[in-house]
Amino acid sequence: MTGLNKLHPFDEALTFSGNCDCLKGQTSAHYANKIGPYGGMTAAVMQKATFAHPDREGEPVALTVNFVAPIGEGDFEVLPRIVRTNRSTQHWWVELLKEGKVAATATAFYAKRRETWSSTEIKYPSAMAQQRGKRLSGKELSLWMHSYDIRMIKGGPSSWGVARGGAEESNSESFLWVRDEPNRAMDFLSLSAICDAFAPRHFILRNRIVPAGTVSMTNYYHVQETELAALGDQFVLGHARGNLSYNNYSDQMAEIWSADRKLLATSHQIAYFKE
Amino acid sequence: MTGLNKLHPFDEALTFSGNCDCLKGQTSAHYANKIGPYGGMTAAVMQKATFAHPDREGEPVALTVNFVAPIGEGDFEVLPRIVRTNRSTQHWWVELLKEGKVAATATAFYAKRRETWSSTEIKYPSAMAQQRGKRLSGKELSLWMHSYDIRMIKGGPSSWGVARGGAEESNSESFLWVRDEPNRAMDFLSLSAICDAFAPRHFILRNRIVPAGTVSMTNYYHVQETELAALGDQFVLGHARGNLSYNNYSDQMAEIWSADRKLLATSHQIAYFKE
Repeated sequence: MTGLNKLHPFDEALTFSGNCDCLKGQTSAHYANKIGPYGGMTAAVMQKATFAHPDREGEPVALTVNFVAPIGEGDFEVLPRIVRTNRSTQHWWVELLKEGKVAATATAFYAKRRETWSSTEIKYPSAMAQQRGKRLSGKELSLWMHSYDIRMIKGGPSSWGVARGGAEESNSESFLWVRDEPNRAMDFLSLSAICDAFAPRHFILRNRIVPAGTVSMTNYYHVQETELAALGDQFVLGHARGNLSYNNYSDQMAEIWSADRKLLATSHQIAYFKE
Repeated sequence: MTGLNKLHPFDEALTFSGNCDCLKGQTSAHYANKIGPYGGMTAAVMQKATFAHPDREGEPVALTVNFVAPIGEGDFEVLPRIVRTNRSTQHWWVELLKEGKVAATATAFYAKRRETWSSTEIKYPSAMAQQRGKRLSGKELSLWMHSYDIRMIKGGPSSWGVARGGAEESNSESFLWVRDEPNRAMDFLSLSAICDAFAPRHFILRNRIVPAGTVSMTNYYHVQETELAALGDQFVLGHARGNLSYNNYSDQMAEIWSADRKLLATSHQIAYFKE
């Protein structure tokens, strides 16, 4: 393999052996988090098992990933299964196995889109988008964060160098520009991974890093494949907010926008925290 | 069975025969929608199959329901399966079968909650909550809507008698007070069903009723069983918004609040529409 043909680390992490109904994969050091892969990478793994399957019909509309147990490092298997194919829609169920036990599950919904009246209600965050943000770097970042070029505009933990003072915050709202590092053209898999690229809301509210992790994430896609491809490797704008932290779980809502003001995806998740 | 002991129609719709791993149920005329049960009732059915299971551990934190095919009327089966039980969490997979084919799926996440620092970021919508709203009634409502006492404050289709003029709307934001009709004490099952009690955003934006239906809904629960029970049969406040309608799918985000300003649940969904 020549240098020119070398796979991007993101695509390498999404390379499977086995067959399309029982994929065999390996975790990637480029996307490592504390007790296994970055959750966004696991979301991309679950999505690719369905998206790349020869029987897949339609484009991604909804994906829910449940993080069941630590995936750790090394080999895993992914078992995608079609629940039902309708005339214009398809439902999937996916299990990720680590040493024979389920470590993640997903449901994926695909649809053949029809061109209809369309309208975006929420406003593009223009004022925030005008800022270029501060590039995250440093050894306090998790390994996977070095596989992204993240420009924090607002709302990172203070240890990430985004000034917030030392006190508790009443608002966890965050804005950032993000793209794959090294550059890689946008597609559904990258978009799915980026939906999880925000710090847990709890880190920001409490202004410190505690054990925390997503337990369930749902992405809705508001774009089609050709539109995504046209974005190339440009930065996308991420906006995340939380509604609440309550008895060791906190939620998060996020939007991912293209620089030309198209809402690409909305993402919702709930994460545990320990303190 | 005496009048005093008669089951509430909601509980009747959640009464199963069979065994806890293969429940046999029947659709209820009280919760009928156009091509089968009200989606909120299906969510409650899927949740009850896990919640009432003797091996269930913990309290509801996340529930995703995928509406795979019309459930129609009559008999159905529900197959709940534990994916994995951890020390303090439990993951479930549920299939609902109609004539042997999958018509709905769900993932449910339960956790033993620990008392921690808690904080609600979003504000209770006080100004809207001060309004009592207009009670929905009339034969243009779907059958299931007569099983709720819904007081629209803002944002129903104009055919529901909530004045909106005849033109397209740029904003689908809705507020309503709701409780079971007849009255019934709040619990997780009722809360799950109420998360789906809003009109499709598309009806409001277009100011007309078109074929539409939820394809995937995710609820996050921010309350524990004893707190819910303390609410009794009081109205809860629902707030729903949409981000966009795009190529025959529109999304929705909702919050359900108690009258004493506690955020009980947040709910996200994506629905198809036809026009």
